[in-house]
Amino acid sequence: MILSDETLDDLTVGGLKILQAKSGYRFSIDPVLLCAFIPSIENARVVDLGTGNGIVPLLLSARKEARSITGLELQEQMVARARRSVQLNDLEGSVQIVQGDIRALPAELSPGKYDIVTSNPPYRAKTTGRVAPDDERGIARHELFGGLEDFLHAAALLLKDGGRFYAVYLAERLAGLLSAMCSSGLEPKRMRLVHSREGEPARMVLVEGRKNGKPGMSVEASLIVYKGKGRDYTPEVLAMYGGGK
Amino acid sequence: MILSDETLDDLTVGGLKILQAKSGYRFSIDPVLLCAFIPSIENARVVDLGTGNGIVPLLLSARKEARSITGLELQEQMVARARRSVQLNDLEGSVQIVQGDIRALPAELSPGKYDIVTSNPPYRAKTTGRVAPDDERGIARHELFGGLEDFLHAAALLLKDGGRFYAVYLAERLAGLLSAMCSSGLEPKRMRLVHSREGEPARMVLVEGRKNGKPGMSVEASLIVYKGKGRDYTPEVLAMYGGGK
Repeated sequence: MILSDETLDDLTVGGLKILQAKSGYRFSIDPVLLCAFIPSIENARVVDLGTGNGIVPLLLSARKEARSITGLELQEQMVARARRSVQLNDLEGSVQIVQGDIRALPAELSPGKYDIVTSNPPYRAKTTGRVAPDDERGIARHELFGGLEDFLHAAALLLKDGGRFYAVYLAERLAGLLSAMCSSGLEPKRMRLVHSREGEPARMVLVEGRKNGKPGMSVEASLIVYKGKGRDYTPEVLAMYGGGK
Repeated sequence: MILSDETLDDLTVGGLKILQAKSGYRFSIDPVLLCAFIPSIENARVVDLGTGNGIVPLLLSARKEARSITGLELQEQMVARARRSVQLNDLEGSVQIVQGDIRALPAELSPGKYDIVTSNPPYRAKTTGRVAPDDERGIARHELFGGLEDFLHAAALLLKDGGRFYAVYLAERLAGLLSAMCSSGLEPKRMRLVHSREGEPARMVLVEGRKNGKPGMSVEASLIVYKGKGRDYTPEVLAMYGGGK
């Protein structure tokens, strides 16, 4: 069922489709970059924190590798929409959408049981700009219902020892992200900067943490999104959309 | 005076020369990258912590902008060598080399009086490999006489409010560096990764912190050292050696 204020969009990955609100939160390239940054989900139990429309679970399900994929989302209308997207793609067997708050994890999610936790947490602090209580886009982008520390705390609780945490976040908040990961017991092990164009400052950062891992990380070659000065994706980004990996 | 176990090398910057031990610590490209990362030292009181041969003070003095430049070094033979390099370049008026321990700052260095603190701290933890007590290269590279936290603590003590801290460090220790900067009150404000070659993981990282600064940093386009697969420097690095800035 597609509501009048929704659109049904082609994910261009694995033939999947996703429901999005016309004027609400719509996925950007960030979850696509996040999923491409995860090398393997084979046999993994995966949780996506703050899953929104369910874009990360849908993208990961296209790999057909995970043991289970669960998306946790606070906002009821987004939970309903994510569930309908799961149904539309016939993925009820592999993707589960749970309604709940990262600050008080629901009973469906058992602590210490997961191999991988992913998150595209809100980027903006509570104080930057006003957000209406019914503004699903605002809630998805601002730290109204949990800040970065809450997301990291939930991830550390859910992961088993040695389990991996993946996030995409604002490059300008990199120092806070790495510090908070260290103090949450999610040791940063891999990182990759994302620049819109060659020679420009980084806009986003992709990180991998390991629960109770040893210090020492690999900082990979930066990812460039657009070719030259135009709006065409680089071959690497095109492959993320076309490849279904 | 050049000792029999030393060489007198051309800095290729501002016509300066530097004395280095034949088999001891010799400067690499890292201090050159560090100095090029510092946008302005105009009228600044500058301290370089763990100055070694005095390479950073010598490079910065070539700009002829600073109010004063002081290098602090623990090892006596390196202090003597750095002082002779200062004399050989007729820089006694602008560069001062002080012998002392970053963990117990000498009285010549007044807390809260400096605009800029630079450092190329030891990269390797105490535990990685054995170091003989008379091995000046080993001491310069390993955290035998102060770890990263000690360097950051000293920098925070010496800087005035809003003063800037600059360091070059191993990219694999980036998470520890940014965390420790945050907890030392040296808020990371700018960062740049250094890759030996395009498409390779980052080897080093350049960071700028601001004493008691607000969170939020700019992550600049990465710096590539060598062109293609060869050993020729990229134009940007060549300009650092040739430009004297």
